[in-house]
Amino acid sequence: MSEVRVIEVRQSVFEDNNRDAQRLRDQLRAEKTCLINLMSSPGAGKTTMLKGLARALEGRVRLAVMEADIDSTIDAGAMIEAGIPAIQIHTGGMCHLDADMTRQGLEQLDRTQTDLVILENVGNLVCPAEFDTGASFNVTILSVPEGDDKPLKYPLMYETCSLLIISKMDVLPYFDFDPQAAAAHARLRNPGIEIVEISARTGEGMERLADWFEEKTAQWNK
Amino acid sequence: MSEVRVIEVRQSVFEDNNRDAQRLRDQLRAEKTCLINLMSSPGAGKTTMLKGLARALEGRVRLAVMEADIDSTIDAGAMIEAGIPAIQIHTGGMCHLDADMTRQGLEQLDRTQTDLVILENVGNLVCPAEFDTGASFNVTILSVPEGDDKPLKYPLMYETCSLLIISKMDVLPYFDFDPQAAAAHARLRNPGIEIVEISARTGEGMERLADWFEEKTAQWNK
Repeated sequence: MSEVRVIEVRQSVFEDNNRDAQRLRDQLRAEKTCLINLMSSPGAGKTTMLKGLARALEGRVRLAVMEADIDSTIDAGAMIEAGIPAIQIHTGGMCHLDADMTRQGLEQLDRTQTDLVILENVGNLVCPAEFDTGASFNVTILSVPEGDDKPLKYPLMYETCSLLIISKMDVLPYFDFDPQAAAAHARLRNPGIEIVEISARTGEGMERLADWFEEKTAQWNK
Repeated sequence: MSEVRVIEVRQSVFEDNNRDAQRLRDQLRAEKTCLINLMSSPGAGKTTMLKGLARALEGRVRLAVMEADIDSTIDAGAMIEAGIPAIQIHTGGMCHLDADMTRQGLEQLDRTQTDLVILENVGNLVCPAEFDTGASFNVTILSVPEGDDKPLKYPLMYETCSLLIISKMDVLPYFDFDPQAAAAHARLRNPGIEIVEISARTGEGMERLADWFEEKTAQWNK
């Protein structure tokens, strides 16, 4: 995986992250780049979902991926092996990305060749929800093995997202997970949240998911 | 769940958390209370494991549990229903506990009736590993559905723990998870880490786990 480009981002020098995030969002709007910030617990299936999504979006949306991690280049390596333009962002131990760290990653991509950038944030349901990255939309994944009570315990994550992806639906028979309860818990905090159930392994829901990403990209870049 | 006692902890006033944690640890050593800090991703099975562990420790160790969460009293409620003395700590949005927040929780327990206090930290692999709570030992859980690469991505968590519990072993056939690879990845960072594989559902490994907690409690309180 020697071809993985690793960007060691520095912590933001901006005191007001919200204002900086809005500045980045305005810039991305003007240059017609949709940025989607993907968040979840560690191991919820962000990277596997992204590989399936990239296949489903081929020929429809020009995609690039920024993989954020505290350490390792595993995820960007997996993307590049799957033929997806990707860079690895190292957060220097930080548990989240802010807008300036996101900008440092974006500067390494050729955005004239990209309609949609997906930022795979650090696996964490708490801190990433607190920091606006400048993204056009926030998306979260809840995997079946984690349990349907997570929206009750990590409310801010669900409040800040436009889409909840329920992943690993193929293992539903082996867990006490009620997708309707998960949806109801998420909607307690965010009545407008959209929900797509998927299994990256069986392909269930991946077409509907690709449609959502394509629509949002078109909506943002119009 | 009206009987759940909720402690809204305030952020520490101490600038030097490490020194404060050592002070708390010395105090717990003197009064013969073992404090074990349990960390994991959201949904790795901390609460389910604790219920099984409490049953296995009955008559052997006098246990109390402090459940830390950003919101909700689900976990302390589950403990109390299972007959385990428990309190709920609300972190006021914080992604981790520090030593002073831990102390505020401990002050609500009758420690003269307790040999072992287990602190269920906020579900998060990043920040809780960075803050010494004053615990006698740190323990982390990695559940099979999360993947065996987690120790490579969240190295500090595995460096700071004496025990790695690999949970949800009953669903191993449905996931690409290699317990030996997980162990090897954890030992890259922490060669001395002990590892116990469990399934709280089938009871696999729970007796060995109870032995570990009993031994550590006796070792600390001697």
